[in-house]
Amino acid sequence: MKAVRREPASVTPVWIMRQAGRYLPEYMDVRRRVTFLELCTTPELACEVTVTAQQVLNVDAAILFADLLPMLQPMGMELEYVQGEGPVIHNPLREPADADRLQPLESTEPLHYVFDAVRLIRRALPTDIPLLGFAGAPFTLASYCIEGGGSGRHVATRSFMNSDPGAWETLMRCLSDAVIIYLREQIRSGCQAVQLFDSWAGCLSPSDYRRCVLPWTKRVIDAVCRDAPVISFLTGNPALLPAQRDAGGQVIGIDWRMDLDDAWKIIGPDRAVQGNLDPAALYTDLPVLKQLVRRVLDQAGGRPGHIFNLGHGVMPDMNPDHVKAVVDCVHDAGT
Amino acid sequence: MKAVRREPASVTPVWIMRQAGRYLPEYMDVRRRVTFLELCTTPELACEVTVTAQQVLNVDAAILFADLLPMLQPMGMELEYVQGEGPVIHNPLREPADADRLQPLESTEPLHYVFDAVRLIRRALPTDIPLLGFAGAPFTLASYCIEGGGSGRHVATRSFMNSDPGAWETLMRCLSDAVIIYLREQIRSGCQAVQLFDSWAGCLSPSDYRRCVLPWTKRVIDAVCRDAPVISFLTGNPALLPAQRDAGGQVIGIDWRMDLDDAWKIIGPDRAVQGNLDPAALYTDLPVLKQLVRRVLDQAGGRPGHIFNLGHGVMPDMNPDHVKAVVDCVHDAGT
Repeated sequence: MKAVRREPASVTPVWIMRQAGRYLPEYMDVRRRVTFLELCTTPELACEVTVTAQQVLNVDAAILFADLLPMLQPMGMELEYVQGEGPVIHNPLREPADADRLQPLESTEPLHYVFDAVRLIRRALPTDIPLLGFAGAPFTLASYCIEGGGSGRHVATRSFMNSDPGAWETLMRCLSDAVIIYLREQIRSGCQAVQLFDSWAGCLSPSDYRRCVLPWTKRVIDAVCRDAPVISFLTGNPALLPAQRDAGGQVIGIDWRMDLDDAWKIIGPDRAVQGNLDPAALYTDLPVLKQLVRRVLDQAGGRPGHIFNLGHGVMPDMNPDHVKAVVDCVHDAGT
Repeated sequence: MKAVRREPASVTPVWIMRQAGRYLPEYMDVRRRVTFLELCTTPELACEVTVTAQQVLNVDAAILFADLLPMLQPMGMELEYVQGEGPVIHNPLREPADADRLQPLESTEPLHYVFDAVRLIRRALPTDIPLLGFAGAPFTLASYCIEGGGSGRHVATRSFMNSDPGAWETLMRCLSDAVIIYLREQIRSGCQAVQLFDSWAGCLSPSDYRRCVLPWTKRVIDAVCRDAPVISFLTGNPALLPAQRDAGGQVIGIDWRMDLDDAWKIIGPDRAVQGNLDPAALYTDLPVLKQLVRRVLDQAGGRPGHIFNLGHGVMPDMNPDHVKAVVDCVHDAGT
């Protein structure tokens, strides 16, 4: 939390995006008993995997175990996680004329399992370990709604956005309002900060992003950052960094495809920066891995306000010992 | 060719990456009779699809029908195009210790079918239509050799590169030398310019690119650009643009994820620029498509040295009429 406020600290804090994921044997033990959606919607299990990951890795923050998409269910999206294929939305909003089918999130009640999990986790964690909440940014959620699942190129989303600005506005307004309600309730339930994931916005040019996405992301961040610090993460296009900064957020989470020192110059000294070890480093031998961790720390130069993380989420085939080695290496380095 | 030299012209020239591809019914008619590799290695057929695409689309340049990977066969790579899966290399260089298995390209003779095709196409095309040759850039070829095919994240490549700088140098030296020989022979056989495709380098940070890739790409461009103009194309990471510019090339081909006017500022006024319509524009209705084409032309501002293209290759599911509409719209706009 000191890093979020850019106050000096004795070590660089570190957590790992998707740290409670499939690469951890402790997580897989739980997953053998339940489906992914059952895990997300059972507060006791979500609490167990969240807290276990924090303990096993010895990271400086826990992040709520949840997914970007269940919040779309009470908005009318028929969501399923298909084994080996990832999330599928069976009634996607393929055409601009479908935009009205997305219903506003009028109550947080249908998502009570998320807030119950937050309360359980907050009680289970040591008091000095912040709990991070999160949500998808409006563009990334819109892309899932339109494409009906993950997508390589987000073509339907970009066509929708370019073809009908009115329908796009309807969709983005409905999603931003829902994200605001959802994140605020996470904070009220016990999260110390929240991360907004714009995992797919990297498919856009800066002018498209500024015209069609930035106003909605900014609307969310402006509304939420008064309640708790917001980490704004965007991946896939370093050319969007100035616009990402302009959308707000106390912390800017950056992709590994840029150098942290150059990125911080663009972001400016008034924000904290989170990142950005190349996830591929996790597949190298430990001596090389440590060298690559130190390279990121060197680029940050010990400045207050650096939160160490990967430049992308951890992958299922990563070696847990290597993930732990990253955490230890950051802690051993001091600042 | 005037645009390559940044001389004024009455219209902005246009061609489309992968213009002779699977989206064209004329191409599919040929493909029903032969495999992809047979098409690449049969000069008469490669000539037919190259020339037909230029005629059907009325584009201002033809690009040799070929693929990035057959040049690796005489270097010891066992290449196969598997239906529905794309290229597979059956004996990939998974570990740094494998680097020595890649053999130098000592003669262009095994690739004679490419140069025969160039000669046939040059004779078949109108004299005022330039013929472009092309090759993969060393990093992109290295990634295919290491991953054994296309890859989402190029993890093995980045691990190889980070783990053993000596083996990486061996590999990149061997590939650059081969690309130089291959492109020079294309030019000698009748190509007026060549494009170097670094389709996968976007997975790297600028510092990794500058340290491990730029010297080899520059080596290729320096050697080839004396014989004919080089279009240097790189996709997937706008943060690499300054390094891409520093690697050389009379023309810099840019991704759609940046705005052309901002990109040209970074590239500088002493180079021509190729690009960069968002390929997703091809899926919109014609009035929206034309508006998006004009937006790119407006960003170029009629400056001499703009070659219109997509910011990525055309896709099999694109409507040929929409591709033609892009070409017509650029021609109708004048400069």
